[in-house]
Amino acid sequence: MTRIPDTNRQVVLVARPDGIPGPEHFEVREGPVPEPGAGEMLVRNLFLSVDPAQRGYASAVANYADPVPLGGVMRGFALGEVAQSRHPDFPVGARVVGMFGWQDVAVSDGSQVLFTVPADSTAPAGAFMGILGLSGITAYFGLLEVGQPKAGETVVVSTAAGSVGSAVGQIARIRGCRAVGITGGPDKVALCTGVFGYDAAVDYKAGGLDAALAAACPDGIDVYFDNTGGAISDTVMGRMNQGGRIVVCGTAATASWDPPPQGPRVERAVLVKRLRMQGLIIFDYRDRYGEAQAQLGQWLAAGDLAYREEVLDGIAQAPGAILRLYQGRNMGKLMIRL
Amino acid sequence: MTRIPDTNRQVVLVARPDGIPGPEHFEVREGPVPEPGAGEMLVRNLFLSVDPAQRGYASAVANYADPVPLGGVMRGFALGEVAQSRHPDFPVGARVVGMFGWQDVAVSDGSQVLFTVPADSTAPAGAFMGILGLSGITAYFGLLEVGQPKAGETVVVSTAAGSVGSAVGQIARIRGCRAVGITGGPDKVALCTGVFGYDAAVDYKAGGLDAALAAACPDGIDVYFDNTGGAISDTVMGRMNQGGRIVVCGTAATASWDPPPQGPRVERAVLVKRLRMQGLIIFDYRDRYGEAQAQLGQWLAAGDLAYREEVLDGIAQAPGAILRLYQGRNMGKLMIRL
Repeated sequence: MTRIPDTNRQVVLVARPDGIPGPEHFEVREGPVPEPGAGEMLVRNLFLSVDPAQRGYASAVANYADPVPLGGVMRGFALGEVAQSRHPDFPVGARVVGMFGWQDVAVSDGSQVLFTVPADSTAPAGAFMGILGLSGITAYFGLLEVGQPKAGETVVVSTAAGSVGSAVGQIARIRGCRAVGITGGPDKVALCTGVFGYDAAVDYKAGGLDAALAAACPDGIDVYFDNTGGAISDTVMGRMNQGGRIVVCGTAATASWDPPPQGPRVERAVLVKRLRMQGLIIFDYRDRYGEAQAQLGQWLAAGDLAYREEVLDGIAQAPGAILRLYQGRNMGKLMIRL
Repeated sequence: MTRIPDTNRQVVLVARPDGIPGPEHFEVREGPVPEPGAGEMLVRNLFLSVDPAQRGYASAVANYADPVPLGGVMRGFALGEVAQSRHPDFPVGARVVGMFGWQDVAVSDGSQVLFTVPADSTAPAGAFMGILGLSGITAYFGLLEVGQPKAGETVVVSTAAGSVGSAVGQIARIRGCRAVGITGGPDKVALCTGVFGYDAAVDYKAGGLDAALAAACPDGIDVYFDNTGGAISDTVMGRMNQGGRIVVCGTAATASWDPPPQGPRVERAVLVKRLRMQGLIIFDYRDRYGEAQAQLGQWLAAGDLAYREEVLDGIAQAPGAILRLYQGRNMGKLMIRL
């Protein structure tokens, strides 16, 4: 039986960041444990997810979700266990992943749930925060549905060692593509080629990215899975092949969109090379998560997918975690264990 | 019987332009009339086409075709009549549209031919340089295949009164969309709404483009057929709806791509709005021109399509014609009658 805490510790947004939110923008406060009403349940969070999109949630400029209000609990995904239930679909003991916020417990009417962890799954719970969760699902639909790689093509991935990127690279390999990662620093390069099976990985921090990409992609680039935008993507753009596809999944390289940052105009390359550049928000695929999880689960069980996670212990780690993510100091899916 | 001239007047590129080529970059020279060899034909040009892409042909920076060499005949489309033939597919008297260059006559082995004008067509010859030629075909595939508009959606077109743009706007209307044109000056605004049937047209030269677009597109923008790029497109981008599509067909607003011009980065809008931005080069659809021409011909015969052409008389007009096009002084498909 899930233990219900005496108080609900909550990570509250107390200042509006200009760019990446840091510890100074949050406070951990204690509040009462809420009671679920009719048709509701109480979810006891076990893991809090740390995601790039949280920068947007904390920003005053709306992205695909309204900003978190000052004084509000930080929006974030979590994996939790149903501790009390007055909801027919979610029995006590069920494990659910959803938008439960950065707090110990949350009341939910079920609409915040993204998926229920299959009761018979043998994968560790943390996998559902990463490779079998939104990271893997994002990689799956982003690469296969938006990127549409064909066997023999070259797929380049930015933030290649990250939670989404590492899954993209491995799915590309499984589908018979040449997978090339862009990542920061020799440790992550080694992780890309040694653990995640990239055919090649280049270190954008080492300088000479264009020459390194040219060497790693002798046949040019057919699919670019873009988690960064910015100067890295400008360089990749120059090496795209005719008919190439760019999956726009994240903009980690740009610290602030207010005022709008400038960069080289892309129209001419898009036109001359007949590129297709398309944005991906994984919530649009919500009805199809199970399809991705089934395939990812098979690959995982067969030993075809590796993943890394980095678990920080205790809610006190949460306020600094988004900054840590953007500084690239984590080596795998970053999460906080409560 | 087609008259073969005594000499072949040719528009020769004599200086490399930085941006838009003007009269000072060309000379009209006279050369001998060539003889067609076995499997070749002699085409007598009747109309020379003036197209935005010719800026790229004259530039030192390759776009989707190699640059025209200094001293070479300017590359360009023409409508001509077969005057001599040793080619089984092209009898004397056949009218053909193809890449015959800016000159009186050209020898062709058939590979330069884009299409043959149907012998039974009742449309005027000039129509095959515009609405039934590459302009109409570009509008047809660009809007319908790349833009994929649905009835009730709002389609915005830049260079809306131009040869491609005016066809896009009319096809959008035929397909049940709200068609909104962006054009320069009150005369062209009147042409858009009065002749080409746009639901609304806005004058980008009048200032306040964003407010004018907002008023003209109360439900936002679902498809943007982009012939300009640059500041106009930056403004349109801000009003795109979720899931919107941008057909990148031309970059008329940017005078030079060397050095690469800067503009607001598009990654965030593409991501957050799940936009799809895709380049279109009509030569990729070469095998399907007939399909577009058949449908466009039906609409034209039924009175559903209007078009305008501006014919300049004599080859001496050619050197200044590209500049005229980019200055927006023409009111319809620009061509030169020989």
